[in-house]
Amino acid sequence: MNALRHTISLVSLGTFQMVRRTRGRYWGGFLLGTGLGLASCFSSVTYAHAAAEEGNTKVKREQLDISRFMAEPITDSKVLLEDKQNMRHRMELMIMEIQAEFCRALEAEENCGQKFKVDRWQREEGGGGITCVLQDGDVFEKAGVNISVVTGSLPPAAVQQMRARGKNLTEGAKLPFFASGVSAVIHPRNPHVPTIHFNYRYFEVELANGEKQWWFGGGTDLTPYYLNEKDASHFHQTLKSACDEHDATYYPRFKKWCDDYFRIKHRNESRGIGGIFFDDIDTPNQEAAFNFVTGCAKAVIPSYVPLVRKHKNREYGTNERQWQLLRRGRYVEFNLIYDRGTKFGLYTPGARYESILMSLPLHARWEYMHEPKAKSEEGKLMKVLKNPKEWV
Amino acid sequence: MNALRHTISLVSLGTFQMVRRTRGRYWGGFLLGTGLGLASCFSSVTYAHAAAEEGNTKVKREQLDISRFMAEPITDSKVLLEDKQNMRHRMELMIMEIQAEFCRALEAEENCGQKFKVDRWQREEGGGGITCVLQDGDVFEKAGVNISVVTGSLPPAAVQQMRARGKNLTEGAKLPFFASGVSAVIHPRNPHVPTIHFNYRYFEVELANGEKQWWFGGGTDLTPYYLNEKDASHFHQTLKSACDEHDATYYPRFKKWCDDYFRIKHRNESRGIGGIFFDDIDTPNQEAAFNFVTGCAKAVIPSYVPLVRKHKNREYGTNERQWQLLRRGRYVEFNLIYDRGTKFGLYTPGARYESILMSLPLHARWEYMHEPKAKSEEGKLMKVLKNPKEWV
Repeated sequence: MNALRHTISLVSLGTFQMVRRTRGRYWGGFLLGTGLGLASCFSSVTYAHAAAEEGNTKVKREQLDISRFMAEPITDSKVLLEDKQNMRHRMELMIMEIQAEFCRALEAEENCGQKFKVDRWQREEGGGGITCVLQDGDVFEKAGVNISVVTGSLPPAAVQQMRARGKNLTEGAKLPFFASGVSAVIHPRNPHVPTIHFNYRYFEVELANGEKQWWFGGGTDLTPYYLNEKDASHFHQTLKSACDEHDATYYPRFKKWCDDYFRIKHRNESRGIGGIFFDDIDTPNQEAAFNFVTGCAKAVIPSYVPLVRKHKNREYGTNERQWQLLRRGRYVEFNLIYDRGTKFGLYTPGARYESILMSLPLHARWEYMHEPKAKSEEGKLMKVLKNPKEWV
Repeated sequence: MNALRHTISLVSLGTFQMVRRTRGRYWGGFLLGTGLGLASCFSSVTYAHAAAEEGNTKVKREQLDISRFMAEPITDSKVLLEDKQNMRHRMELMIMEIQAEFCRALEAEENCGQKFKVDRWQREEGGGGITCVLQDGDVFEKAGVNISVVTGSLPPAAVQQMRARGKNLTEGAKLPFFASGVSAVIHPRNPHVPTIHFNYRYFEVELANGEKQWWFGGGTDLTPYYLNEKDASHFHQTLKSACDEHDATYYPRFKKWCDDYFRIKHRNESRGIGGIFFDDIDTPNQEAAFNFVTGCAKAVIPSYVPLVRKHKNREYGTNERQWQLLRRGRYVEFNLIYDRGTKFGLYTPGARYESILMSLPLHARWEYMHEPKAKSEEGKLMKVLKNPKEWV
């Protein structure tokens, strides 16, 4: 039932990744995008901070420091600055910042200077997104970090699912919505470095009577190929601390929710060792909920990057690599069969499938009837995937 | 709409692949299975033809020549022989034969004598199956050929979908069914050899008033990595000839149905270059329908094996291999997102997922924003995947 409750927020992020790609060249006031073509090894965007011209007099006015971001925000910078208190704008700036901080933290771990390729795209109905992908790095085999900020009318299927989840929405009505979020999946090359996934999102719907409903959702979870108990505890402890700052009941509830959601049901095993997962957060108030989600998003780097640094140069052989690829096959199974955001996104005509499917690994493997020995390192991982445990 | 119509038959084959595996050691009268353990390179089953003992006198009576098959049939051989006219029994013998002929034809193409591994499994509710897999061969990277023969009660979801498809079934009633079929997916190693998939099935449902409904379904389709127009024509012509022997309207109808079904909708491209696909065949009579399906199943080897022989020793490089793996990623996308048999099968608690997922390739690859040049060999394939064409 938990899995059902958060469907729509995931769904929305998938659904809203619509097309009309702009291949990333922006000559607008604040941003000079460079090298955003098809080259697979792209240097990150550089920016020129222009002074605005008004009539013949150059007037310096408040400007967004876009160099903090991977690309120009989706909403016009002027609009973002004019109404700083608007939660839509605060969320957009927060996810832009998380995206850039995370991308740069990962780039810093690459040994040969591989950088993220940045695609900024727009959606016909309203809004757009920025997809950053680093592929074939020496540390990261495939890393995708996406943000999207979209508006439009809720599709009837979405309204129906929200109603099923307890939202008080009029069936059949065309309800205006706003959704924004950041999501990432990082598949490292070394089998001793785990895969991480996170997603933080904000949602608004305007009811027929003009009333507005809003909520936050999100989560961070880890998928190791070899179990390192210290890593698992560090990861969960970092998330727990982020939760505990806001509500001591959050971590145990959201840890369980995560275990329930990321279950590969036909195999009766988990995708990874979990983390946190939540939806419909609208208490105690918008400010506190935003701060909580921001705190979780800020915890991603300290929860994960130390594990990358610790293991990225460890030796490994063919067996470890093959096992990693088999587990990546399971990751693909979960994402394509169970993940509601992915499925719903792909079923939407005109969806930007490249942003939705950036979560898939560069390589995956399926062997018939593969089963590791119980006492092997692979078997030890399987034991906790079959029966999720407490890490802190 | 076509895609919707054949849902249930696919669904059923997936759904009915339930568990209670017997790991393939049979000491029954006719079959001495050998080497059916976990070894990945398994020699095919050998059989001893025993004379039946009755009292003290040895009497030779009619026996099934089980050496024609990959394992002992699912239904007791005595029962199969006692009622030879029963369509259930005729179908079981036909799919057993097709399975063995196809497996042996593929084994004959292996350059180093790699053989199929045979798993015979039983299903608690009734019936079972035989899953044959050849993995890591020098010609076939992963080849799976499965038969299943199952009975039970139609799950409510299946009844509902059959009703939606026009079947006159009582909603909510527990309807006894019988389903049997053969299905195969062959992923060769050499990118110049195409992947083939086929599936032929027979279905019976007993209505509340005791009346029995029956129908056949099936199809064969080809997924090349490089387009060879001669191969495509040969493949389609072989299927067309098999169809034309029974009804001249079949090939054009079933060719279109196939193109409609194997569509990766989010990418607006086909999985391969099609073939034939049909369901609900119950005309002109059971005999003729069975003969038609048998004819199609018999056409698989002549449609495909010559292509294997022609290309299996061709040279290829990293680029061709990478392209093949990318296309295999698309194959995974279709099977896990759209194929109703796979999805429904996996959603069924206790499904034998190893038999359902044997269709997945040993390796697959996903690259962000990969797009081959229009005039390259890869681009030429993409052109016909975007716009299916007529081959004969």
